[in-house]
Amino acid sequence: MNIVLLSGGSGKRLWPLSNDIRSKQFIKFFKTENSEYESMVQRVYRQIKMVDTDANVIIATSKTQVSAIHNQLGEKVGISVEPCRKDTFPAIALATAYLHDVRKIGLEESVVICPVDPYVENDYFEALKDLGKQAEKGEANLVLMGIEPTYPSEKYGYIIPATKNQTSIVDTFKEKPDEETAKSYIARGALWNGGVFAYKLKYVMDKAHELIDFTDYADLFDKYETLEKISFDYAVVEREPKIQVMRFAGDWKDLGTWNTLTEAMDEPTIGEAVLDDACNNVNVVNELNVPIVCMGMKNVIVSASPEGILVSDREQSSYIKPIVDKIKQQIMFAEKSWGSFHVIDVDETSLTIKVTLNPGHRMNYHSHQRRDEIWNVISGEGTVIVDGMEQPVKAGDVITMQAGCRHTISAVTELKLIEVQLGDEISVHDKQKFVLNV
Amino acid sequence: MNIVLLSGGSGKRLWPLSNDIRSKQFIKFFKTENSEYESMVQRVYRQIKMVDTDANVIIATSKTQVSAIHNQLGEKVGISVEPCRKDTFPAIALATAYLHDVRKIGLEESVVICPVDPYVENDYFEALKDLGKQAEKGEANLVLMGIEPTYPSEKYGYIIPATKNQTSIVDTFKEKPDEETAKSYIARGALWNGGVFAYKLKYVMDKAHELIDFTDYADLFDKYETLEKISFDYAVVEREPKIQVMRFAGDWKDLGTWNTLTEAMDEPTIGEAVLDDACNNVNVVNELNVPIVCMGMKNVIVSASPEGILVSDREQSSYIKPIVDKIKQQIMFAEKSWGSFHVIDVDETSLTIKVTLNPGHRMNYHSHQRRDEIWNVISGEGTVIVDGMEQPVKAGDVITMQAGCRHTISAVTELKLIEVQLGDEISVHDKQKFVLNV
Repeated sequence: MNIVLLSGGSGKRLWPLSNDIRSKQFIKFFKTENSEYESMVQRVYRQIKMVDTDANVIIATSKTQVSAIHNQLGEKVGISVEPCRKDTFPAIALATAYLHDVRKIGLEESVVICPVDPYVENDYFEALKDLGKQAEKGEANLVLMGIEPTYPSEKYGYIIPATKNQTSIVDTFKEKPDEETAKSYIARGALWNGGVFAYKLKYVMDKAHELIDFTDYADLFDKYETLEKISFDYAVVEREPKIQVMRFAGDWKDLGTWNTLTEAMDEPTIGEAVLDDACNNVNVVNELNVPIVCMGMKNVIVSASPEGILVSDREQSSYIKPIVDKIKQQIMFAEKSWGSFHVIDVDETSLTIKVTLNPGHRMNYHSHQRRDEIWNVISGEGTVIVDGMEQPVKAGDVITMQAGCRHTISAVTELKLIEVQLGDEISVHDKQKFVLNV
Repeated sequence: MNIVLLSGGSGKRLWPLSNDIRSKQFIKFFKTENSEYESMVQRVYRQIKMVDTDANVIIATSKTQVSAIHNQLGEKVGISVEPCRKDTFPAIALATAYLHDVRKIGLEESVVICPVDPYVENDYFEALKDLGKQAEKGEANLVLMGIEPTYPSEKYGYIIPATKNQTSIVDTFKEKPDEETAKSYIARGALWNGGVFAYKLKYVMDKAHELIDFTDYADLFDKYETLEKISFDYAVVEREPKIQVMRFAGDWKDLGTWNTLTEAMDEPTIGEAVLDDACNNVNVVNELNVPIVCMGMKNVIVSASPEGILVSDREQSSYIKPIVDKIKQQIMFAEKSWGSFHVIDVDETSLTIKVTLNPGHRMNYHSHQRRDEIWNVISGEGTVIVDGMEQPVKAGDVITMQAGCRHTISAVTELKLIEVQLGDEISVHDKQKFVLNV
């Protein structure tokens, strides 16, 4: 199976866990069999590999997510990096060109497109395999997954199939309806459109060449910024007469809000939490290392991260976006290509950060104009380079760097350090990168 | 006026703001006219000084609170330090002896005893002055304040006066009643017993000598640990026939629980907080530097500090003690004689702490056997002494100290540092103090 996972943008719907730079699909939220936690991306990737060990998985995303994807899925996973956001048609065209030109997938092979964050069981990925096989038969140019509705949702588009067969020609598509209309659709046998479909690689390559003037993947990548923003639905689906739909009746959840996300939690709390006996229907997700105590709370979601603390009525939590959009705040936690950082103290003329470098990784070689820095290595072993001078470091070592001095650190084992930044104008933008010649 | 403020022990009823080492009376909770926050201790001390500039204020407390009292009230305030906790009779005897022998207060002068944490207006302290004056008249050996009840509380003891006059002989005392009994007391003109009373210094000195074999303050202090634990009520009040009560009808609140404390807040929130329009009767007290967002919450108290996060139904919050007593946790924040510290990162083999030294103060000269330390000075100026070697330090300086090395730091201006502790067995008990000869 060739599968393209569309990894959407960042957002604050799951603040304080998600924010402008940390997308919900990277939050480690789901308990695995060995009692560790995995993210949506990790869960979906693991499920795909269980169903099809040889699956060719490509993640289509923006460059801001590349570090997090490599950290969570390893270096081998295929990534089709969108130089900028241009809606789904350019993204799918680019990923398809990547599969053809870089991964050398044949034109007659099928490609399955799926969002990166459905909360599903393995039967869902079995259904995706079937979707790919159906696309390869060539009975239709697009084969969609139609999810059997469990209630008259206003959140989804609907697909009305021509027949009640497992696989059917699509009669019509319907936009997100109100509840009454949704009921009438369901009475007519309508299915939810989860944005999942398969096609022969050749089909989308042809469509891409029809609509975009490019030679190959590299060329498409180079001119990506000039492309028109257009959705795959608008550019392709709405104009295509030969579309089939395959029914899927298994579990399927779209965990886009606190309300739906917490429903999928195996246990009521993650992290340090104490609920008294008077609590009912309370979920706590705590990324801090101090306890959250809840007393007499009902139908409430509590979450704490280095970014902030949310205490919300379960229903009310769906209105979070405009409220947290108003909060102007420094980023307190981020995954980087080399590991992660966490702001642990903010003062007038200093910023203290805990930095974790993954084994074998290093930061960019860089300098700052307006701040001095001190690295206190607290665990692990590695190498620092300061103004071209290289030296090994281990726990207990201290490196001081004046403003202007070029520096980097690489980790042999996992390496943690406390970085103290000192200056009157500390800013993430005060950073000059250099090529390291060693 | 000579006034002894009884500063009670620590407790977790206001967790996460109060804990085993941080008592509620030191939490900066009340907004002053210049929009700063003051603690209960600061508020009461300021009110006393407004009513009586020359008031002789003594705080009777344990040695664990001395640092916090000096930090909050300055070095000049009188403190009668109890070497250990021995209930109210020994504490009042010790404070009275302190007034007599150290402060040279005459035997005929009156002393007013008052808890350190009533939430009251200035008229209350005017009433305390009257209480003292009444005691000096010598009509009775004890003059109690009787607070006009506002409801049939089960939380307080009751005083039943013989007459309805402003000042009356006490007829009887009643223990904390149930609500129905409280109603019948109130119908008989009963008053709440707020634990406030005045006496002539000689009276309590005589009682003390009757019950304890001691010569003077220094002697009483030295043998304090051998004294019997006994309450002032049991030792004195219950055996004294000549007791008067003076009515007080002004505002009086006992802010011992989250419920009562938040009722006294001038604004619904302290610290960074965002409440949506669907919130009602919500109080937030946030000591962290990240926002708390509340959505659709009703009758809820939220508080966050370096120790943890509380989310509680307003009524339910009074049951907090047994729940937080179970939480075993490192102290994350403390006021010390020299300033304060705040744990900002905990890792397996390291602990990172932000230390603030007040101007003119220094730490004890000390060493650790099982950990190295690194000081990163982030602001201010001062002097470090490491193994007897003295050197000035300023922002940007780094001092590394191996286990066993003796060290201290003193602040010229307010001095802040990030202290990184490194070792396999980091413990607050791993500390040897030394006399500094410089």
